Amino acid sequence: MSRLVMKFGGTSVGDVERIRRVARIVAAERKPGRGLAVVVSAMSGETNRLVALTDDAGKGLSGPAFDDEYDVVVATGEQVTTGLLALALRGMGVPARSWQNWQVRIESDTAHGKARITGIHADRLGAAIDSGEVAIIPGFQGVTHEDRISTLGRGGSDTSAVAVAAALGAERCDIYTDVDGIYTTDPRITSKARKLERISYEEMLELASLGSKVLQTRSVELAMAKRVPVRVLSSFVEPGEAGPEAGTIVCDEDEIVEKQIVAGIAYSRDEAKVSLKGLTDHPGIAAEIFGRLADANINVDMIVQAPSRVDGKVNMTFTMPEREADRAAALMEAARDTIGFESIEVKKDVSKVSVIGVGMRSHVGVAKTMFEALSKRGINIENISTSEIKISVLIDSSYTELAVRALHTAYGLDAA
Amino acid sequence: MSRLVMKFGGTSVGDVERIRRVARIVAAERKPGRGLAVVVSAMSGETNRLVALTDDAGKGLSGPAFDDEYDVVVATGEQVTTGLLALALRGMGVPARSWQNWQVRIESDTAHGKARITGIHADRLGAAIDSGEVAIIPGFQGVTHEDRISTLGRGGSDTSAVAVAAALGAERCDIYTDVDGIYTTDPRITSKARKLERISYEEMLELASLGSKVLQTRSVELAMAKRVPVRVLSSFVEPGEAGPEAGTIVCDEDEIVEKQIVAGIAYSRDEAKVSLKGLTDHPGIAAEIFGRLADANINVDMIVQAPSRVDGKVNMTFTMPEREADRAAALMEAARDTIGFESIEVKKDVSKVSVIGVGMRSHVGVAKTMFEALSKRGINIENISTSEIKISVLIDSSYTELAVRALHTAYGLDAA
Repeated sequence: MSRLVMKFGGTSVGDVERIRRVARIVAAERKPGRGLAVVVSAMSGETNRLVALTDDAGKGLSGPAFDDEYDVVVATGEQVTTGLLALALRGMGVPARSWQNWQVRIESDTAHGKARITGIHADRLGAAIDSGEVAIIPGFQGVTHEDRISTLGRGGSDTSAVAVAAALGAERCDIYTDVDGIYTTDPRITSKARKLERISYEEMLELASLGSKVLQTRSVELAMAKRVPVRVLSSFVEPGEAGPEAGTIVCDEDEIVEKQIVAGIAYSRDEAKVSLKGLTDHPGIAAEIFGRLADANINVDMIVQAPSRVDGKVNMTFTMPEREADRAAALMEAARDTIGFESIEVKKDVSKVSVIGVGMRSHVGVAKTMFEALSKRGINIENISTSEIKISVLIDSSYTELAVRALHTAYGLDAA
Repeated sequence: MSRLVMKFGGTSVGDVERIRRVARIVAAERKPGRGLAVVVSAMSGETNRLVALTDDAGKGLSGPAFDDEYDVVVATGEQVTTGLLALALRGMGVPARSWQNWQVRIESDTAHGKARITGIHADRLGAAIDSGEVAIIPGFQGVTHEDRISTLGRGGSDTSAVAVAAALGAERCDIYTDVDGIYTTDPRITSKARKLERISYEEMLELASLGSKVLQTRSVELAMAKRVPVRVLSSFVEPGEAGPEAGTIVCDEDEIVEKQIVAGIAYSRDEAKVSLKGLTDHPGIAAEIFGRLADANINVDMIVQAPSRVDGKVNMTFTMPEREADRAAALMEAARDTIGFESIEVKKDVSKVSVIGVGMRSHVGVAKTMFEALSKRGINIENISTSEIKISVLIDSSYTELAVRALHTAYGLDAA
């Protein structure tokens, strides 16, 4: 007996016609000795509609006074999809039923609106799918120990699917989405981008956290922790059309036979740089600055401290999402005397370009290739940050496409 | 400690603005030592939208293959309202939370789409409302012993509310609707119609089954069985505006001090009459006719058997809802030889007018007053049927208003 979990997002189940196509895709995966569980999102637009209703009804409320009932309302979106998909499957002769979270049961913590799944009791569910009945489960939610509904936050359905796959001991979790796999870079930037057959969890995590919206970060973390292979593939092809090689498998590094040094090039335009100039360096100055930003919930990324031209002074530069820049600058300005700096500069027209690959661990010269490729095109590097499997640079945003294309070629990723 | 259950239908919660008015009405009923539970319907239009989705997704399915998942989808409508009303109440500083059926828990049987409530475990719910927190419960549904959702069918929210009131031992169940009470007759027919302060369960049952759509029949039966006083009142007035005498209380006959002989005059235009003429009377002929109609699920009402002009022959006349008449006639026609009649006649322009009152039990002459009043206006009575507390006559439908007004006056019901 094997088990497979499939997940379909909001656009894949956007109307009843699409739900019928999803049913055909599910039906095509049925085979003797294989149990199927399907995790679904709300029909696209539905979550927004429900959120707007709660915003209106709960005007003036926030935090715990708002979040639990927000979850009660918003969670209905997925419930509707489960019933409709069950009906569509039955309509083509496939035994199916919906399983709500409290029926399964899928337990989550009480952090309403951004909960984590804490456990899944999959015995009844497992027995049901092993009997040949397809189980359809609402993603994005769970039931707390107090018997209340808590949702996982946007994109949480991916995490639900991986958690269900782990609990069922599934062979794989197939995430159907509106793209047909993971690419070496954004195909809108270069036609030479190639679909990857496989990518490691670590690489996918770096991609996801860099703004590639294909998989939610937490779902990849969970898949890695539980060793669940995840396949990303398109729900916009009819079953059979895509071929057996469809999509990209996200798996353990060891399961990737032909390793590339670099798996892909990512970029993000949603960056801004704040520079504090002429700081008097002293112990605790970093805590002084970044403590303030953390308290304000501003997610700081690349940090560089460099000597200033003035003796004994330093400059501190850091990046953050563009929408946070003005708030960060205002916070610094307000504490100018305490922190002790001479001037502040905000720059918003910057992009982050990153090279990602587990091969970097064992190969030298990866950074050199990057810096040479950029320098050859006259692209100035404003900041650098690295991890074990990633090198990121901050550049003037007008060079973004040029940089991505140059690096894609330099690391031998171009399609033949 | 006292407890009150309030119920609001679909038009009362039709949008967020109306939900806020409902919240104000609920807030006005709060007082120290009184626990409040509120049962809500889906926002008007929502159930229709969800039903249409299931009809589309489940095309070609019916019965058990359809009904359980239909319930999963349609039940979300009420869940949305519970969350929104909880938020609206909190927004005005009233502690409140939603309680889904599986949280309460409200148990129902497995007759999906037309289930009955089989039990309510109201301990946790009761403790919660006694603590001062308003509980908001989705009407129209329950959870089966197999842990699945089953809905009660249209109008089932009234029944949910009465069942919750019974389980909580509530002092009363207030049903808020789009009318401000029960009237002696339809105010659109005579401006002299009066709102009743009280009406007995039995009278209300006759009114409900005669097509007065204010309360669902089953909810009145349940209220009578469990001795739950029900108040019917309008949700379209602001709290305080309606005054303490608002609405009509449906209660035990013994609690009505000033009994009228006749409580009200009801009518129904949705009637048709089928007459079979020249039947050879023999034992079993009624079973022959009405067995066929019952098998076809046609609800037959007034039955009259009268001697025909031809010796040894009889005529059989019966009524039913107008939309069933052609089907009934076709069924009879198909069995003409077996039943043995000479001709068949269908008449659709008929109305049923009824006089209802528990006082009839102890007063003679009620029927005489009716027949005289109608005869004085030249209204011909085509059929008559009676129960212990009701006399109904079938008349030509063009006389409906005239008959209702005449009877309203004849029984002394006219407003001063």
